[in-house]
Formats: sequence, C-alpha cells, structure tokens
Amino acid sequence: MIKRGITYDYHGVLSDFIGKEHGLSRDEIISYQSRVNAGHQRLVGERKRGGIGFFELPYREAEAREIKEKAQEIRQGIENCLVLGIGGSSLGGKALRDAIKTPLYNLMPRKMREGTPHLFFAENIDPETISRLLEMLPMEKTLVVVISKSGGTAETMSQFLILYERLKRELGRELSRHLVAITDPEKGALREIARADSLISFDIPGNVGGRFSVLTPVGLFPAALIGIDIETLLEGARAMAGRCDLPDLKSNIAYLNGVIHYHYDMKRGKPLFVLMPYADSLLSLADWCRQLYAESLGKRFDREGREVFCGPTPIRALGTTDQHSQLQLYIEGPFDKVITFLRVEALRGDAEIPNPFSSDNSLSYLANHSLGQLFGFEQRATAHALVENHRPVLTVGVPEINEYTLGQLFYFYELQVAMMGELYGIDAFNQPGVERGKVLTYGLMGRKGYEKYVKEME
Amino acid sequence: MIKRGITYDYHGVLSDFIGKEHGLSRDEIISYQSRVNAGHQRLVGERKRGGIGFFELPYREAEAREIKEKAQEIRQGIENCLVLGIGGSSLGGKALRDAIKTPLYNLMPRKMREGTPHLFFAENIDPETISRLLEMLPMEKTLVVVISKSGGTAETMSQFLILYERLKRELGRELSRHLVAITDPEKGALREIARADSLISFDIPGNVGGRFSVLTPVGLFPAALIGIDIETLLEGARAMAGRCDLPDLKSNIAYLNGVIHYHYDMKRGKPLFVLMPYADSLLSLADWCRQLYAESLGKRFDREGREVFCGPTPIRALGTTDQHSQLQLYIEGPFDKVITFLRVEALRGDAEIPNPFSSDNSLSYLANHSLGQLFGFEQRATAHALVENHRPVLTVGVPEINEYTLGQLFYFYELQVAMMGELYGIDAFNQPGVERGKVLTYGLMGRKGYEKYVKEME
Repeated sequence: MIKRGITYDYHGVLSDFIGKEHGLSRDEIISYQSRVNAGHQRLVGERKRGGIGFFELPYREAEAREIKEKAQEIRQGIENCLVLGIGGSSLGGKALRDAIKTPLYNLMPRKMREGTPHLFFAENIDPETISRLLEMLPMEKTLVVVISKSGGTAETMSQFLILYERLKRELGRELSRHLVAITDPEKGALREIARADSLISFDIPGNVGGRFSVLTPVGLFPAALIGIDIETLLEGARAMAGRCDLPDLKSNIAYLNGVIHYHYDMKRGKPLFVLMPYADSLLSLADWCRQLYAESLGKRFDREGREVFCGPTPIRALGTTDQHSQLQLYIEGPFDKVITFLRVEALRGDAEIPNPFSSDNSLSYLANHSLGQLFGFEQRATAHALVENHRPVLTVGVPEINEYTLGQLFYFYELQVAMMGELYGIDAFNQPGVERGKVLTYGLMGRKGYEKYVKEME
Repeated sequence: MIKRGITYDYHGVLSDFIGKEHGLSRDEIISYQSRVNAGHQRLVGERKRGGIGFFELPYREAEAREIKEKAQEIRQGIENCLVLGIGGSSLGGKALRDAIKTPLYNLMPRKMREGTPHLFFAENIDPETISRLLEMLPMEKTLVVVISKSGGTAETMSQFLILYERLKRELGRELSRHLVAITDPEKGALREIARADSLISFDIPGNVGGRFSVLTPVGLFPAALIGIDIETLLEGARAMAGRCDLPDLKSNIAYLNGVIHYHYDMKRGKPLFVLMPYADSLLSLADWCRQLYAESLGKRFDREGREVFCGPTPIRALGTTDQHSQLQLYIEGPFDKVITFLRVEALRGDAEIPNPFSSDNSLSYLANHSLGQLFGFEQRATAHALVENHRPVLTVGVPEINEYTLGQLFYFYELQVAMMGELYGIDAFNQPGVERGKVLTYGLMGRKGYEKYVKEME
C-alpha cells in the first residue's frame, strides 16, 4: 500500500494559465485569509462545544478495532450483506466498497472476492428492484444491516419491516444473528426495536449528521464486512486533519479548495462544480461528495436569517467516459463550471495493448502502450484542452486508491465544505428544506396527526 | 404490456401554480409558435435532403427483424456479452438493458434472466476494472460486440485489440463466432478488419450520429441479445413520431418541452435541467439523455458562425434516493433549475409493507401500504414541495416501463433536442469541441503525423 499524501494542483485556475477573464490571481485567493481565519475560529469553537462531531471521528481507533472484530465474527457463513439505508446512510459505504474493491465487486466470483460476502445497498424503495433483489437473496446466508440516524426514515424503515418479517418467518429465533442496527444511541423507533430484540447494534454519535458519518459505524461496519482496512482509513483521515490543522491557505489545501470554489460561485458566475475522477472506482466517491456539497451548502437562509438562496450545484462525471458525453459542453458551453479531476498515479492493475494484426493500420499507434498509459494521456490531454479554452481546472492527485488515500479524501472534502459554510455564512450541518416533503408524505400515508397536510395539497 | 402513450404535464411551470417570478404563461409559450414552425420546416428540409437520419429509424422494421433473428442465433451457448463502446455506442444499449430488465440484470441468476446472457458494457478504459472484467469472462462462452461509428475510437479500439488478441489465442478460428462489429458501412479501421476477417457486422447509417443511434443496430443488437422486443420499441417510436408530426405546440409535446426548456435557459436564468425518474430502471435513460442534451446543445458557435457559448447543463437524479442528497439544494438553493420527473404509473412488481410488531409504534403508519404506494406518494409530495417553493416542475408520465413506452421516450427526447437546436440556432448534430483532446492524445501516444501536438502542450 502506498501511504503518501494526496496532491492538490490549482495552476489550472490561475489567470497566468486560463486568462484574466476566467482566472484568479494568487492575491485574490490570499485575500480571503482573514475570513478563513474567522471561520476557522468559529469551527474550532463549535468543535470544542461538541456541536460538530465529524472532527473527532478519525481518532476513534478503539471503536474501529471493535467494529472490525465484530464484522469478522458476524460475517461467518454469510454470502450476502444487504444494507438498508439511503443518502448519508449509504453513500459513504458505497464509496468505500467501489473505491477499494472496484464497482465490479458484487459481480465477482467468491474467489476473486477473497471470501468476503457480496455487499448490496438497497437505497431506493422502487418495488420493481426491491422485489427482484429479495428474490435473489436466500435469508439463511444474508446479513441485513439497517442504518438510520433518526430511526424513522420512511424508505429505510419500510424496507426494514419487509426484511424483518421475512427473516422472522424464515429463520425464527436465528433472526438476531442476521440483523444489525446502526442508529442513534438513545432515541427513535429503530433503537427501541434493537433494544427489545437484543439486536447487535452500533451508535451514530448525536453530533454527526448523515452526510458526515462515513467514518462512524455507518461507513465503517459495511466496509469492515468486506475486508476493508478501516483502521488505515482513519489513519488517512488523521493525516489530512494534521495537514489541515492550521487555517493558513498556503498549507491548508481543504480550505484553499473551499475558497477557490466559493469565489468562483459567488464572484465569478461559476456555480457548477464538476467532480470528474479518472477512475471507475472513485465515481461513487463523487456521488458521496455530491450529497455533501448539495445538502450542506444549498440553503435559503444564512445564519442571520436573511434570504440567500445559495448553493453551488455539484455534478459528477467520469473520465474517460464523459469525454464522450459531457466534454463538448464543458469545452464549448457557458463559462459556468469549475472542473476538478481526480487523477490516480499508481494503478492496481493494467493491461498491455497488443497489435494482433500483421500489417500496419490506423490502430497501430495504440499498440505497445498500456491501457493505463492511454488513460493517463487522455486525462492530460483533456485538462490541457479545457485550460486552452479558458475553463478553470483543478487536479487532485491520488498516489494510489487505497484506504489511506480514501481516508484523506473524505476528510479533505468534509473540511472544505465546513469552511465553505463559513464563507457563505450558512449552517452547513442542517437540511430544513426536505422536511416539507416528509410531512406531506406522512399525510398521504394516513399517519396520525398529519391528516391536515393532505388538504393543503389539494 | 400496456401500450399507451406517455403523458406530459406542464402545470408545474405555469405562473398560476409557481408564481410570476419563475412561472410561465401559456401565451409566453405559444408566442414561440412561429419560430417553431420555421425550425420544423428546416428540419423537414434537412430530413428530405438526407442530412438527419434519426427520423427514419423507427420505420426500419425489416432490419429489426433481421437483427432479432441474428441475435437469437448468435447467443446460443453464450453466457456473457461484452459490448465495447463508449458514449453514443453504449448509453442507448445500457438504457435499454436497465429499463426493460432492471439494473439488477447482470446480478440475476440464469433462471431469472430467462436464459439470456449477461450484458456488460466496457465503456471506460480504466485498467483496474478492465483487467478484472477480463478475469471474470471465459472467452469460450463470451460474445464480444465492438461498436464504433468511425471505427477508430481510441478507447473502444484499444479494448478491441486486447479482446481480439485474447479470442484469437484462446479460440483460434472460432474467433469469428464470438465477435460482432457494428460500424460505418464503408469506412474506418473496424470496417476493414470486419471485411478481412469476414466478421458478422451491422451498419450504422452515415447520417446518424452516435447520440442519435439507439434505434440503429448500436442499441438494437445488444438489446435483442437479451430478449428485448426491439420491434415493439420501434413501434413505440413510430407512435411518438405520429403524435409529433405537426409543429403545433398544442399537440407536439416534444417541441413544447423544447420550447419550455429553451425559454427557461435563455430568458429566465435557469440553465440546469434536472431529469429525475422515480424508477431505478430509468436512471440509465437519464444518462442517455444527458449526452443527448450536452453534446447537441453545448456549442461555441451558432450556424452563422457567431460566438454564443450556449448549452444547458443536464443533471441526472433519482427519486427517492436523491431526496436524501440533492432535494435540499433543489428546494432552497438558487432558482436555476427546471426539474422533470419521470413517473411510472403501473409497476412491474410490488411488495406489501407488513407490521411484524405486536404493538403500535411510530412505524405503524407504513404498514398496510405497498412500497409502490409509498413510492408514488413521495413523488407527489416532492413535486408539491418544489412547486410551493416556486421551482418549475414538469412531469412525464410513463404508463408502464416497456419497449413501447421506451421507444416513445427515446424519440420524444431526440425530437425535443432537434427542435432546441433550431431555437438556439446551432448545429445540434456535430461535436467539434472534443477534437482537440483527441489530437493531443494521439500526440502523446506517438501517433505518426501528430508529433507536433506534444510540443504545443509544453
């Protein structure tokens, strides 16, 4: 495992490279230092007060060891793990699975999986897929992991009721060996059930919101089930925390990335943040990041209660695939995007391109290269073409995709978004806008006390 | 199979519902009629001239029959089909597979697949996934389908060289029974190889671009391999063609959808088009649509050669999943989005939510509903919450996900985008912006005649 720090390259946003109209000067960036210092002080204060919990997660090493041991014990005889969870309860786990084990993991035969079970995330409640998924999973070889911070998420708890009933019917008292609950330590329907049934359970700390919970049991337990080294994951996060301990924009790459994105959104008319890994395995990380940006920064009111309707729109794209779908727009369309490449330096596998034809043809230039070389060249060429067309480009270099670098990336983006919340002057840790849809749904479902909402819809 | 027309509901963009600041009046929409008529005339002219080929595809019924027969013959003894193709050469086929067979298809055991083979799309060249995929596919049971309009796409042809060499080494002369080429009828490296090796091959008509090619063998052949009824797919497309034959905005829902989106982008500051199916199976259709919008409408120059830098940014989202990721931003963030729901009326499977607990608890309201009901309620509640917050909402109703409705949807979006090209005054059928990245890559790969580009990058 290559244990090196990720790199951060912002040459592609400087006016020296993309021109003054769309580029930034170093002075422009550094001029944010005092606002960053103030934001940092406030965050440090909130942290001390216990208001923001994600800061402490990388240091819970003993808990990680416990989770790992428990996971190794529970997965004996298990072929399939089915995680019931949505949003912050699934995106971190998926990002971990896909990054470390590749998105092909569930298609791999047991031997390629080194004996660890399949790991499915039933996020949505689309009954067309849920009913087929249930058909595919024999209960006696399945572990169900139900994850809900509140313990009352409608989608997750509906799935839970279906799975609970089925486990009970098919396995009887064995049920409790096939069910793990991850929820609030005290409150909520799921915690009550876990208590009444003596289910194996893990806690989500009260001061950690869903989208910041990847380094709690929410992300760690599913990861540990498939053999991901969660202790090294925390070590990577600690490395990033150490690197970004001080607010100085010359050393704190998370804050620097936050400043550059904030500035482009609010001062330069570029509210679209494209995150484009050149790695199939990191596309789910971009999905995780998409929630982190959108829910944290999409806010109607600032902390003083003024209407701001702010929030950049995160977009996930994949290199090289989206060169054949979105690149035309990124290069020739409106100047409203900031594009971040995630570039992997050392690959965990490669393939040589042969030339199976005797005579030279127009494909011969491909031969005697590896796919990995072509992959890297395409990223370089695409970045160059964007810069030539005055499009801001940032590059995060990942020495190798592994637990150590992934831990850094999670913490890097969480810190960035926390600082951006300060710059926008909003609360990055709530999500008041989604409440209305929830109560309207309760009304339609006939939940007691919510009847009035049906009338409001008519 | 339910053979009904899709529905189109635009109440959620009218000022009566979302207010004047962000809503439209019917008059505002109808005022585009003369521009639409002019655009329609030009498209009809181009069609007659043979310049735009996608218009004719729904009527190639004899070809569909041939493709179907050939697919049934070829798939004998085959367990895995691997499509090599990227962008327009994969997105249509993936949309078809996922819509008709659900995104779980490749995970299903053979019986649930009704004996048809797995269908993989190797789009990207990420060697970490390609090398694992190759490890998983025994060549003697694998059919490789290579798709490239030009016959020279670097990503696809690199994969092709690797697979060709491997098939040849493992199967010798049997190779030609495991390889199908889909490319230009006359030109390109792939066509030459197909000729020299007497490979089974299909033609992509010269006047049909990649992103409009789903109803050519590009989409039809992979679909037919897994038992999708491609004749009914064309029938659905013909139904939409008939319905949108005249340019009248009162009847032509594709043009109407184009006008509404164009107006929001160019006159009302809403350049973000969110396509949000409430159906796991339609998420890949949104990915297909994302290419169609971005490559067709993202253009630097209009047809008169003036710099316009136009193009809305398409965004794919999934209900209910993205209620827990993006909805906060859509409801409270900037007023820069138009959100289209794809809502499925009749589900192909459902599950009852039981109440396995003896006493009432805070989850009891879920019981005695089906997942499908909850799914539908959540869509309705979400749409309502958006409208209350003055966010433009469109709803496309899909009577059932099947070949007939999918054919309609493909043709609906193609027609819409063709009309939008007219409104923007740009060429919706080219993609000049991606050329630069290609030649820079050739340079880095050392291709003869492209050496100078390496110097330009330094």
